[in-house]
Amino acid sequence: MGEPFLLTPGPLTTAYSVKEAMLRDWGSWDGDFRAMTKSLCDQLVEMAGDTAGDYACVPMQGSGSFSVEAMLGTLVPRDGKVLVLANGAYGLRAAETLRVMGRAFTLINKGDYLPPRGEEVARALDADPAITHVIAIHCETSSGILNPVAEIAAAVLSRGRKLLIDSMSAFGAVELDVRQIPYEAMVSSANKCVEGVPGFGFVIARKSALEAAKGNAHSLSLDVAAQWSAMVKTGQWRFTPPTHVVAAFLEALRLHRLEGGVAGRGARYTRNRDVMVAGMRALGFETLLADRWLSPIIVTFFNPAHPNFVFDRFYELMKARGFIIYPGKLTVVDSFRIGCIGRMDEHVMRRVVAAAAEALADMGVDSAAPPAAAIAERAKLAA
Amino acid sequence: MGEPFLLTPGPLTTAYSVKEAMLRDWGSWDGDFRAMTKSLCDQLVEMAGDTAGDYACVPMQGSGSFSVEAMLGTLVPRDGKVLVLANGAYGLRAAETLRVMGRAFTLINKGDYLPPRGEEVARALDADPAITHVIAIHCETSSGILNPVAEIAAAVLSRGRKLLIDSMSAFGAVELDVRQIPYEAMVSSANKCVEGVPGFGFVIARKSALEAAKGNAHSLSLDVAAQWSAMVKTGQWRFTPPTHVVAAFLEALRLHRLEGGVAGRGARYTRNRDVMVAGMRALGFETLLADRWLSPIIVTFFNPAHPNFVFDRFYELMKARGFIIYPGKLTVVDSFRIGCIGRMDEHVMRRVVAAAAEALADMGVDSAAPPAAAIAERAKLAA
Repeated sequence: MGEPFLLTPGPLTTAYSVKEAMLRDWGSWDGDFRAMTKSLCDQLVEMAGDTAGDYACVPMQGSGSFSVEAMLGTLVPRDGKVLVLANGAYGLRAAETLRVMGRAFTLINKGDYLPPRGEEVARALDADPAITHVIAIHCETSSGILNPVAEIAAAVLSRGRKLLIDSMSAFGAVELDVRQIPYEAMVSSANKCVEGVPGFGFVIARKSALEAAKGNAHSLSLDVAAQWSAMVKTGQWRFTPPTHVVAAFLEALRLHRLEGGVAGRGARYTRNRDVMVAGMRALGFETLLADRWLSPIIVTFFNPAHPNFVFDRFYELMKARGFIIYPGKLTVVDSFRIGCIGRMDEHVMRRVVAAAAEALADMGVDSAAPPAAAIAERAKLAA
Repeated sequence: MGEPFLLTPGPLTTAYSVKEAMLRDWGSWDGDFRAMTKSLCDQLVEMAGDTAGDYACVPMQGSGSFSVEAMLGTLVPRDGKVLVLANGAYGLRAAETLRVMGRAFTLINKGDYLPPRGEEVARALDADPAITHVIAIHCETSSGILNPVAEIAAAVLSRGRKLLIDSMSAFGAVELDVRQIPYEAMVSSANKCVEGVPGFGFVIARKSALEAAKGNAHSLSLDVAAQWSAMVKTGQWRFTPPTHVVAAFLEALRLHRLEGGVAGRGARYTRNRDVMVAGMRALGFETLLADRWLSPIIVTFFNPAHPNFVFDRFYELMKARGFIIYPGKLTVVDSFRIGCIGRMDEHVMRRVVAAAAEALADMGVDSAAPPAAAIAERAKLAA
């Protein structure tokens, strides 16, 4: 369609058929739409790996952050206490959400990208028996790191605490199976790895947790338990759902299944990342993270040290070639990010690398090597 | 497109070009999308009648109820007190929202449809100086009544209190001009009289109120002041916006302007209502409300007393003919509702009446007259 590819962590480039699914209006009260909602929930619970019928999916209007807030506000009792594991903007946002709601929390803040590790989580839990819940970020898109949720889960669950996972940008492409990691609840959104359009998020939670959560919420709208209870009773969303976005998501789910589910989707994104990272490294760009920490979702590159490199100009030159990239979020050194998710494959990623080479040439940047400070920063995290 | 018309208070039937505007993906961080957000806000402030630059428009992700909650949670200080004027589900929902947030409120509950009047508002305010804000529902779609906001506003403003208006289903088709009714804030949504698709709402508020509201909100996501401040600073929504829904709304705004703005849109809906009500009355159906209280948004009809009339069957017979109608919400007598809003005109409304006549015949209902109890109920509200 001539529009630019979105190399961002969402909204992302979606299939044309996903958008075409929005070309009709649905009555949200009508039986046809109620069946669509049911199908959406059933497919997501299946994607989560629940074969025992222990979990329910509760979609929630708004952006992904609305769903994170809804999960925290509903599933953490008013007298609960949360350990927040932060290594970037989304962990810090979870802490800020709890602060605004007036819920008790404690924070392990690892800075820009260093991953929270199982043993430090274990120590924090042993030191503070008041902690009831732990929230971990699966892929922290601030840096693009894939956090070690398995070792975090082991620490949390062995101590009898409850695990909440923000898998916003990873669910659907990175394995997260309740049979391996029996979390209390997980949150993601329509316009990430399932490749729908933005407009709602969803919480996948233990039914027992939802049943126990009645009356916890700080908000009428962002009450996951009330939304679930209304859906069980009537098949409807409590308040007007984004009907077109829901229709688009069902088509996105069909394409996800067609591609081989989480494994197939993850394989394409991984290939996207590998091709793009190899190409960018060949141009002299360096990644913040060593390979073992790189997610197949989004990758942070250091800005080149060359004096002619200006990010805003690089952004416009890439956009003129059909690629929307993303600014960095590191606080210590300058960086930018390129996403690997959305309706694109390795052929597109090769064109991204070619566009980056042309943009460097246009700016008169003959070396993409980062400054020494960036390399020193990177040394903090061993491969 | 062969799909049914939605004769409901939203989601409603939209123009094909509105849906076509969703056929591309937008990066929410990109300058092109920021310009779209600015245009949307500018046009809505103009629609509100603000020529002095006193008001700002703040869109908010989620359904309309999310925006109502955001308005109440942000603009009412934590030590404020709200007088809620209720005559149906939406007034009661505002009260419930305040209860969940832990804000003080007092309720005038007029039951299923009787309108709150200026003099009783005046009495309530005189009796309780602690009341800082009053929230009124412009069109209460539970019954379809158009509440007397002008006389309510006069009572509130003459007593130095602040007026909040839920004009969810009326804004864009029923005059509500800040030069006549200088409210503190007003809330509506994308998929009502502007005829966009569902996915966000918006608050139009005094800039001075937004500036004073920092830190009031009970929720990170539903903070109108924080959303506004981020938009002023960066041109972006704080969290991922429903980009496709925003694009659709801009096309809806173009069509709204083309039709002659609020006056033109209101005239079509009024004609829809008049043709539909006249036709239904000719079939023997009776409206809950006398003409002076009927909104051009949605109309409540009593169920016929005839023993063969079953609403679920009537619904399916209407749906089979291409019309999705809406169940009633009265607690005392059985009723149903037919909406007048969305992309349809009087020709469609004539077909609605013809379909209703056929549905009655199919059911073997030879009189659509309501039971005596319905007529007695109606007598409570003088014309």
